[in-house]
Amino acid sequence: MNAPGLAITRRLRSTPFSSRIEAAGVKTYTVYNHMLLPTQFRGVEEDYHHLRSAVQVWDVGCERQVELAGPDAARLAQMLTVRDLRKFEVGRCGYAPVVDDDGFLINDPVALRVADDRWWFSVSDSDVLLWAGGIARGMQLDVTVREPEVWPLAVQGPFAEDVVAAVFGESARAIRFFRFAPLEFKGHSMLVARSGWSAQGGFEIYVDDAELGGLLYDALIDAGQQYGIGPGCPNLIERIEAGLITYGTDATRSDTALEAGLLRYCSLDAPIDAIGIDALRRQRDAGVSRRICGFMIEGDRVPHQRNPWPASVGGEAVGEVTSAVWSPRLGTNVALGMLPIDHLAPGTQVVVSCTDGERVATVVDVPFPGSSQR
Amino acid sequence: MNAPGLAITRRLRSTPFSSRIEAAGVKTYTVYNHMLLPTQFRGVEEDYHHLRSAVQVWDVGCERQVELAGPDAARLAQMLTVRDLRKFEVGRCGYAPVVDDDGFLINDPVALRVADDRWWFSVSDSDVLLWAGGIARGMQLDVTVREPEVWPLAVQGPFAEDVVAAVFGESARAIRFFRFAPLEFKGHSMLVARSGWSAQGGFEIYVDDAELGGLLYDALIDAGQQYGIGPGCPNLIERIEAGLITYGTDATRSDTALEAGLLRYCSLDAPIDAIGIDALRRQRDAGVSRRICGFMIEGDRVPHQRNPWPASVGGEAVGEVTSAVWSPRLGTNVALGMLPIDHLAPGTQVVVSCTDGERVATVVDVPFPGSSQR
Repeated sequence: MNAPGLAITRRLRSTPFSSRIEAAGVKTYTVYNHMLLPTQFRGVEEDYHHLRSAVQVWDVGCERQVELAGPDAARLAQMLTVRDLRKFEVGRCGYAPVVDDDGFLINDPVALRVADDRWWFSVSDSDVLLWAGGIARGMQLDVTVREPEVWPLAVQGPFAEDVVAAVFGESARAIRFFRFAPLEFKGHSMLVARSGWSAQGGFEIYVDDAELGGLLYDALIDAGQQYGIGPGCPNLIERIEAGLITYGTDATRSDTALEAGLLRYCSLDAPIDAIGIDALRRQRDAGVSRRICGFMIEGDRVPHQRNPWPASVGGEAVGEVTSAVWSPRLGTNVALGMLPIDHLAPGTQVVVSCTDGERVATVVDVPFPGSSQR
Repeated sequence: MNAPGLAITRRLRSTPFSSRIEAAGVKTYTVYNHMLLPTQFRGVEEDYHHLRSAVQVWDVGCERQVELAGPDAARLAQMLTVRDLRKFEVGRCGYAPVVDDDGFLINDPVALRVADDRWWFSVSDSDVLLWAGGIARGMQLDVTVREPEVWPLAVQGPFAEDVVAAVFGESARAIRFFRFAPLEFKGHSMLVARSGWSAQGGFEIYVDDAELGGLLYDALIDAGQQYGIGPGCPNLIERIEAGLITYGTDATRSDTALEAGLLRYCSLDAPIDAIGIDALRRQRDAGVSRRICGFMIEGDRVPHQRNPWPASVGGEAVGEVTSAVWSPRLGTNVALGMLPIDHLAPGTQVVVSCTDGERVATVVDVPFPGSSQR
């Protein structure tokens, strides 16, 4: 039996880069924010080695922006996230967890202050557009909530800075981590941020013109020839090693931001009016009962994982492994999952019921050793 | 070059029926409400003939329920839709467009009143859960908004009633169109509605137990053997012929409910407090400038359509075709799209720029002749 294919229609929106990455041989897509996101080009392991050694251009147009603009934009932005935004000057971006009143995770976006009275939430896979719009409507706030036509294009890998500097000019090198600046391509200004969903370093370019976006893609590929540039995408091995969770896979609406391991982005002691912050304060004070952690899973390469694998101790199910893959660099299976707080000490052993049988797994710290080369 | 495949992970949620339909050879999936939805088994044309002549079981677990429960449930339900819900007694369901304050379509769900103070919105592909939750939060309503674990399973086709009666008992035959009743399967009560996303007649069973759902799937397949039952799914040919639009393809957030052709579900003269109803009243009074319509497109079978095809008159782009496919029964290409109001008269000709070249298309009434056999 062949694996089911993907029926692509308008509802699974293409991006300004789709024709190019399909010509380049994208092997598999996923769907993210009602949009196509590539997951594999030459193969997950080949893509991994290439990302770590060279440089890639990523079509991450599916990172949709939820724009808040107007007099109440700052107030709504702060209500949406439990991260203290008071220090976010224009030009700064950062992870900004969005939770509901009970602290359960709705999204783990990157927030960007693009102007004094204008914010973007660059969202993972849920319609924050509707959450923000519903709150604004319910409170009769003076704010416009919309999804602008912006398709991020990422350049990731050790030579990302050289490639971006070749296309946008040397000033790109001055952009600090989680900062962005307007830079020009063919006379058109675009926001360029030093950020991205890998630990290899790089940039995300917020492309706001579809036609120019295609030309930018080509220009980046041309400029990167000397560095062995090629198409790429968020890589399963690399992101597990880096400890980067995927909303919808490693954490869902059934997990709080603290259970999802996002405490460092939750400003629980700040005097801010944020939805869910009281619930998270209570959970912190009472003690979080479970949390995302890393694992090494013994044995040969694990099979493709489609659903969580139960994790047990002494025959009793205690948690689950949510993402797992073979790491050719570390010579073991690396994984992320969720365990009760009293099983989180590195070195703790659990039994994981993989699709092809039980395996012993050991809790480890994330990121995995050597995941970042920065 | 092969068509890109689909990388299935937890984030693209499987259903209680996934293992069964994959064993039955599902060829292609789409992703709908962060969940897998089959689009093809033996082939779109074979599936079409089978749906019209026999009976199919559909895994439509992706039709997620947004549940509103509590003292303010009825008030919030009515705010969410421009359809007058005052006549929705318990046991009634019906299309209930959800729009924003400007009348733009957020979703075209089916609303079910499941109890006096409990509503389900069985939603198409957008996170109404977050829209409803945001409004409830913003207004501090006394209502619980959640997505219960319910996976609809549809039985569609001319023999659907016989199959459902064989499994749930003869009382199933008494359920009227867009009504539902609790019926028992293995001692467990489930809501069974006479509804579904085809014009061939049938039922949707709101399965709220995953394990029992698998057994129900098997029981339906067993009971339907004498009627030639098989797996199926919403069918592109059948739904275009029936004039059933797809949210995200034929209408998007950029179209109002009236432009989407949903006027008959908009209770614009009812004294109800519904978000966006004033905007739709104004649009009706000023005159809608464009609307969804049907087309016959000349020539041999059109290629697979991935993005809208521009429609022009006298060389000027005036609208677009959003869904098109060859109808083996009618011997022509059938299509849905959007045109300005002064080009909507049946018989009007436009030029459609299909992926493989220009073709002449004629505006026709929908549903297409003979689409429904009820």
